[in-house]
Amino acid sequence: MTSKPIRAIVVGGTGYTGAELVRLVLGHPSLELVSIVGNTTAGQAVADVLPSLRGIVEGAVQPFDPDAIAKQADVAFCALPHAASAEAVSALRQRGQKVFDLSADFRFEDLSVYEAWYGKHPVPERLSEAVYGLVELHRDELRDADLIAVPGCYPTASTLALAPLVKNGLIRTDGIAVDAKSGVSGAGRGVSSATHFPETGEGVRAYKAGTHRHAPEIEQELSRLSGVPVKIAFVPHLLPMTRGILATCYAQPAGSSVTVAGCIEAARALYVGSPSVHVLDEGQHPDTLWVRGSNRVHVGYAQDRNSGMIIAMSAIDNLVKGASGQAIQCLNVRFGLDEGAGLQAPAQWP
Amino acid sequence: MTSKPIRAIVVGGTGYTGAELVRLVLGHPSLELVSIVGNTTAGQAVADVLPSLRGIVEGAVQPFDPDAIAKQADVAFCALPHAASAEAVSALRQRGQKVFDLSADFRFEDLSVYEAWYGKHPVPERLSEAVYGLVELHRDELRDADLIAVPGCYPTASTLALAPLVKNGLIRTDGIAVDAKSGVSGAGRGVSSATHFPETGEGVRAYKAGTHRHAPEIEQELSRLSGVPVKIAFVPHLLPMTRGILATCYAQPAGSSVTVAGCIEAARALYVGSPSVHVLDEGQHPDTLWVRGSNRVHVGYAQDRNSGMIIAMSAIDNLVKGASGQAIQCLNVRFGLDEGAGLQAPAQWP
Amino acid sequence: MTSKPIRAIVVGGTGYTGAELVRLVLGHPSLELVSIVGNTTAGQAVADVLPSLRGIVEGAVQPFDPDAIAKQADVAFCALPHAASAEAVSALRQRGQKVFDLSADFRFEDLSVYEAWYGKHPVPERLSEAVYGLVELHRDELRDADLIAVPGCYPTASTLALAPLVKNGLIRTDGIAVDAKSGVSGAGRGVSSATHFPETGEGVRAYKAGTHRHAPEIEQELSRLSGVPVKIAFVPHLLPMTRGILATCYAQPAGSSVTVAGCIEAARALYVGSPSVHVLDEGQHPDTLWVRGSNRVHVGYAQDRNSGMIIAMSAIDNLVKGASGQAIQCLNVRFGLDEGAGLQAPAQWP
Amino acid sequence: MTSKPIRAIVVGGTGYTGAELVRLVLGHPSLELVSIVGNTTAGQAVADVLPSLRGIVEGAVQPFDPDAIAKQADVAFCALPHAASAEAVSALRQRGQKVFDLSADFRFEDLSVYEAWYGKHPVPERLSEAVYGLVELHRDELRDADLIAVPGCYPTASTLALAPLVKNGLIRTDGIAVDAKSGVSGAGRGVSSATHFPETGEGVRAYKAGTHRHAPEIEQELSRLSGVPVKIAFVPHLLPMTRGILATCYAQPAGSSVTVAGCIEAARALYVGSPSVHVLDEGQHPDTLWVRGSNRVHVGYAQDRNSGMIIAMSAIDNLVKGASGQAIQCLNVRFGLDEGAGLQAPAQWP
Repeated sequence: MTSKPIRAIVVGGTGYTGAELVRLVLGHPSLELVSIVGNTTAGQAVADVLPSLRGIVEGAVQPFDPDAIAKQADVAFCALPHAASAEAVSALRQRGQKVFDLSADFRFEDLSVYEAWYGKHPVPERLSEAVYGLVELHRDELRDADLIAVPGCYPTASTLALAPLVKNGLIRTDGIAVDAKSGVSGAGRGVSSATHFPETGEGVRAYKAGTHRHAPEIEQELSRLSGVPVKIAFVPHLLPMTRGILATCYAQPAGSSVTVAGCIEAARALYVGSPSVHVLDEGQHPDTLWVRGSNRVHVGYAQDRNSGMIIAMSAIDNLVKGASGQAIQCLNVRFGLDEGAGLQAPAQWP
Repeated sequence: MTSKPIRAIVVGGTGYTGAELVRLVLGHPSLELVSIVGNTTAGQAVADVLPSLRGIVEGAVQPFDPDAIAKQADVAFCALPHAASAEAVSALRQRGQKVFDLSADFRFEDLSVYEAWYGKHPVPERLSEAVYGLVELHRDELRDADLIAVPGCYPTASTLALAPLVKNGLIRTDGIAVDAKSGVSGAGRGVSSATHFPETGEGVRAYKAGTHRHAPEIEQELSRLSGVPVKIAFVPHLLPMTRGILATCYAQPAGSSVTVAGCIEAARALYVGSPSVHVLDEGQHPDTLWVRGSNRVHVGYAQDRNSGMIIAMSAIDNLVKGASGQAIQCLNVRFGLDEGAGLQAPAQWP
Repeated sequence: MTSKPIRAIVVGGTGYTGAELVRLVLGHPSLELVSIVGNTTAGQAVADVLPSLRGIVEGAVQPFDPDAIAKQADVAFCALPHAASAEAVSALRQRGQKVFDLSADFRFEDLSVYEAWYGKHPVPERLSEAVYGLVELHRDELRDADLIAVPGCYPTASTLALAPLVKNGLIRTDGIAVDAKSGVSGAGRGVSSATHFPETGEGVRAYKAGTHRHAPEIEQELSRLSGVPVKIAFVPHLLPMTRGILATCYAQPAGSSVTVAGCIEAARALYVGSPSVHVLDEGQHPDTLWVRGSNRVHVGYAQDRNSGMIIAMSAIDNLVKGASGQAIQCLNVRFGLDEGAGLQAPAQWP
Repeated sequence: MTSKPIRAIVVGGTGYTGAELVRLVLGHPSLELVSIVGNTTAGQAVADVLPSLRGIVEGAVQPFDPDAIAKQADVAFCALPHAASAEAVSALRQRGQKVFDLSADFRFEDLSVYEAWYGKHPVPERLSEAVYGLVELHRDELRDADLIAVPGCYPTASTLALAPLVKNGLIRTDGIAVDAKSGVSGAGRGVSSATHFPETGEGVRAYKAGTHRHAPEIEQELSRLSGVPVKIAFVPHLLPMTRGILATCYAQPAGSSVTVAGCIEAARALYVGSPSVHVLDEGQHPDTLWVRGSNRVHVGYAQDRNSGMIIAMSAIDNLVKGASGQAIQCLNVRFGLDEGAGLQAPAQWP
């Protein structure tokens, strides 16, 4: 490595996606970690806030200071809650900073959709500046984007499974159901009864059935691919595991000639040149354990023997391909690096 | 208790459903456990085979001897693999024994469906004798049945969630998807890579997507209720937990007047007088942990905000309401006992 | 059952031990549940606070009113935090109520030990009234006790493993180490980072190593049995499971003639007539899964091949034999019922 | 990187330590993976045997051919069962291959100890050639070793916690107890009832209490450090998690002047210059989750408030620092690379 490294700052770096960003930045051949910025933890030792960094990262969490960030870093990753993120992103963009935002604030093309689900947008004028950071579907637009809206974990898993089918007209676009299963780290670091070990271990439940904020993100991407408005049923579930998302999607085939082989072929065609995506052979089922801790996506297809319905499945690690790894992947594309730089490690299996 | 207890034998009593049958028989006010019969474990101490019975059940596992069983017991529970079960059941029925069979062998009205999924039936002539033991839907027929085919765990959860909707014409019967999530005990006591802790913990995967043998059981019951042939998409998933099944079912509403309140009302009407079923209020989601270790079913309904699709959910313990508890519930009905006798304990929560 | 049931009230009934008390009272042949009293949840529907009781227990959580309790109930179970419990217990005792207290407030004979670990005692004058509710060691005193201090989960597991050795002089009383492993439900229902699923699953850690409040309880009982003051090293650990305590205890043998067979013999002699305790054969190791959900204790012994040190092990369910089941067992003894009444169910295995 | 990479082969590469070796070799800046050799899986696609390598490693598992290995590779990692490993290692050493052996075959200086625990040694003449690969205690000897016996997971965790105390005479060497808690991946990839998810989840148990083969390895190292023969009590436990070992060690202090601060100081002195070891501050407890997936060791010390006994604790990932990462660390030292090369990633937390 002779070229100067890209200096990166992680804003909101003391939650789970922040911790994972720090890990990935530290292991990336072209990145240098400048500092970790945290709202409520500023001043504390990084190693006290993120115990996996004991003996690895020295120094304290920094307060948010956009001028200092703009001076010290080439890029900022923002892992803040929505609305708070928009404010921080805007302050950084005003100073010319390239920003990879992991919140929902810049993911929607249509302001009214954002506001219907999240409330008033603090800086709607910046929406048009953002590119949706699902690399596999937006690679070219990302090459010169300076505000990148990194997608959520559920949309990443669901969209990548359904995209080849919708794009190629292999399924009917009415009656699509997405049943998503998530590890508990997706709920973040904040504690609650819903994520208290004794009430989460040895049990499974749906939550926000039909009303989760990630549904319109999936619909935006599927509608774009299909050319017609697509509405889906979306139900997320909380599973007794820490990491991983499995999306199982159900749709009626567009016609009697649709086969599993055809779905696989469409997916392989769409994802050729996408190092993070692996399309499984017929008969194989994705397993979140096979991608745990990696930036990889395993996609697989099946058809119901009785009803003929098409089943599209995908597995990701919610904190990597569903958040922090995806942000790094966007950065790689934006800076003309190898798309898989720093992201090529296989899963830690088992 | 002044009347003579009903003497019960558990055949195939050394797997998980067998262990659960033993536990429930021991705790039942009107049952007496005569013996435990096991194929491969005959002669071993019961407490060595089922370690939870150390200090509780003395004696050895017995070999299968239909004459002895007919002499010693009033009823037999059979928890054997399919085909083997049909042979054992037939031998017991020839001796006039009342049998509660937990295998798939007598669940299908249509022999050709059984044979398409399970292979040749050893005693097809006995199919007509059997009653399907989903008490909530077949209570009256069970009152004088002597061969009761206790349903599988997936059909119990799925059918009870969808039955009120199908029976009342609230959903379209094409395009129904059932996404079922199971604890690992559903795979039984036999070891395999698929159930080896390191390859099961911290991961989730579908298996037999669209080709699982429980799908036609669900279709049989839904078709019966709706009056037209119903075909569903059915995908089971293995979750990192020991017990529990959650079924999440997706369907398009039959018309624009269908509401969640209407679904709940239909379910409450259908399950009035069913002590095992509790229909949740709007906004509540069933959680397998809330029913773990009990014979209870929690059913809930939602409607997708964007697509309008109907979501039906149910949670059971796969070894209790999905197997052994259900067998006891059938026995209670068959013998005119209180339907909930020995089954009223709430879940062991957490 | 022709005799009138014993009317019971559960004070502090909306945590985990409270939920378990309710479950056990409901299933007990001689008890009747009068009401559930909760400090912060008074007025809420029981089923909203304890979701496993949906469809089973109607009505609302009651505020604490000692006069009403004394009028409505024959006995009260108190499952409150220490100090708060002493106040409530005292109010109930003033009204003549028999009380089974699950807090630490009345477990110590020596006030100074209590105050060294817990702070000032609200009603020290009542200490002498209390009997320590470890039935296996205090059965006779419990028969006429009206204030019973039900032991903590760690002391129950640890003391029952070591008692036969200490009582019979089989081990040296210096250098005893107790390594205790607990499921997360032992931490109670209050949420914290330490019990947040993503930071508890897939990891194990000690906590309060050498400084946990349960150590002096174990020392009190071992000193009483041995006749000399015993001090132990005690380290509790948090494991990624919901229920169960395994105590592994290490001690040097008192002499070269000490054998595993001798330890087992001593334990079987001590626990003859104790229906909850089962002493394993040589070569068997207790497993918390074998007692999960039951009031049983499995105790086992081994000797290290190289060092000759004695290893005493025991497994319990922390919420049953380590709390609520033990309280019921005390009640059974106090009221002259069968000691195992309502407690005979085997574990829900697996 | 301009220098030629070191070509590495993984023999026995299709179990869990093999998978982890492959992952670490792929991510190492100076290593090149030549091939994966497997006994029973030769000829199968690597990606079918190790599903985390789908889309990453092409080609098939190779049969064991020592001539081919010697020609193609500079070093071999052997992850075979004991005895089988000795044979393979010997064949490779005859061809001049440098070997990092993860079996027990070359870990003992004293042949009689090996044979007392493992049976007859196939090539005892090679014992003297081997160096014990616990880098922190044998760094200098490893610099020119060609046969390196990589220690087991339990000895690594236990020895590193106790070494500073024994070396500095801070604890009495009689009466040491090591209570070790392991994730299930330590049992390997072979399936059994003991590792079947339903019988492992939600439970904890000791196994081989006092008779585990790793005890003499720990004793060898502690005796070497202390200068007198040390015998310990060693009890391993199986916990419901996939990865991680926590060792909790108990000993009586050598005198009344021993303090936690003194233990920490001794550990920091011993491990200065050891990039994998981090000694925690007083009051902190190691957590296996903080090191999961990394080559790091967290060590911590406490003293029991009542008994004064010393408590030494350490946490590692059994598959990394307890096996494959340690082998890589040995290689780094042997080849004069940075000791942490390819091993610096923090844990994947959570």
